[in-house]
Amino acid sequence: MNRADDRQVQIPEHIRITLVATRHPGNIGASARAMKTMGVRQLALVAPSGFPSAEVTARASGADDILARVRVYENLVDATRDCGYVLGTSARMRNIQWPLINPEQAARQILQQALAGTAVAILFGTERTGLSNEDMELCNAVIEIPTDPEFSSLNLAAAVQIICYELRKAAMEQFAVTQAPVSKMPAATVEQMQLFYQQLEQYLRDIGYYHPGKPRLLMRRLKRIFNRIQPDQSEYNILRGIFADAGKAEKEK
Amino acid sequence: MNRADDRQVQIPEHIRITLVATRHPGNIGASARAMKTMGVRQLALVAPSGFPSAEVTARASGADDILARVRVYENLVDATRDCGYVLGTSARMRNIQWPLINPEQAARQILQQALAGTAVAILFGTERTGLSNEDMELCNAVIEIPTDPEFSSLNLAAAVQIICYELRKAAMEQFAVTQAPVSKMPAATVEQMQLFYQQLEQYLRDIGYYHPGKPRLLMRRLKRIFNRIQPDQSEYNILRGIFADAGKAEKEK
Repeated sequence: MNRADDRQVQIPEHIRITLVATRHPGNIGASARAMKTMGVRQLALVAPSGFPSAEVTARASGADDILARVRVYENLVDATRDCGYVLGTSARMRNIQWPLINPEQAARQILQQALAGTAVAILFGTERTGLSNEDMELCNAVIEIPTDPEFSSLNLAAAVQIICYELRKAAMEQFAVTQAPVSKMPAATVEQMQLFYQQLEQYLRDIGYYHPGKPRLLMRRLKRIFNRIQPDQSEYNILRGIFADAGKAEKEK
Repeated sequence: MNRADDRQVQIPEHIRITLVATRHPGNIGASARAMKTMGVRQLALVAPSGFPSAEVTARASGADDILARVRVYENLVDATRDCGYVLGTSARMRNIQWPLINPEQAARQILQQALAGTAVAILFGTERTGLSNEDMELCNAVIEIPTDPEFSSLNLAAAVQIICYELRKAAMEQFAVTQAPVSKMPAATVEQMQLFYQQLEQYLRDIGYYHPGKPRLLMRRLKRIFNRIQPDQSEYNILRGIFADAGKAEKEK
């Protein structure tokens, strides 16, 4: 693409880079800078250390508008409440079987979802340890950034840079060839899915379907299964309907 | 690609990240780290400031072997003397008409050249001002890293990260044909899913959840929803279990 086209490449506003429990303030600043170079604008911080601070501002190197608009949350559920598509990131997956997606594929899907009106959150965990299992449970999929297995210690801002770079590439691609969005309706939000899981859990209690002593493990597996659906609003209503009627039927027994 | 393949992805030794007149020692360390995460090993420095130093080592975060093997040159001609393919990098091209290439295309060409035995140098200019015209004259082409035209101030180590990331992607592409399966277990077969849908339909009849007169339409929508899960065998059993227990409970009423 040429220079003129370049200026028209827009990354949708409601793609939110979400840094979870960042320990080094410099990484927050460097992440803001990384975002801005690629035209990604929304930054959310969950329980950050040392924000705001002079170090954050110094490392942002002029990405001040992003810092000025940062939203800070106490926990990840609050930060993702309105999001319909949530992706974790990892430089190296642990044993847990989570649907993995590479950065390039992820960027395309994120863009399609965002263009359909869905708010998207991309999660980056704490330095060194990454996202917790509890964080992962909110995710529809996990972006695996390819690294050398012998040294996968990717800097936090470097990870943000790679993902935002792929988002820009995807936006340039989309600008060149327009694609049909996955769905014309916005996706179900995290808040809605939380309600659904509560209902599902209640239903499973009602019918007595629980591995004895391991209710949390079962719910985690079910979340992994159902998060893959990424239902839109209408599909969400169907899913809710199924178990709502069952609950009613059970109670009437 | 799976884990085992991953370990065999090798970036050829004679691809040399060449930092020209770097002013901030921290950027040298961060670049070494960025290289190592992607399996790129050869670093050359042309007239660097503050190398070696504690700051370089700190920011390298364990990429010590790369620092130990760094070659330092007085000028760029010396640094590139043995190279057969030299690429400049720029976040935003000036007026100069130089053959431009994007990072993805560049990575593929670099790999091909290197696999054919050619030593390759990838040049990164001074912070703020980038490569000089004199530096450019040594280049076969210039890699343009896409950035937002309104803020193209890419950090030096972030630029190195993007290029090395594309090199790793290109090496993986060259190596692999298949992608990592989501699960190590075989997926549920079509036949199994048919059984699941029969069971689901029976369950929906039992609980009386049907749009009046439109049972087939509902089942079609449900198939569209549940097919997205692509369950493996173990997940399939969980799904079957949920509705089996419900069916039993319903019949016992």
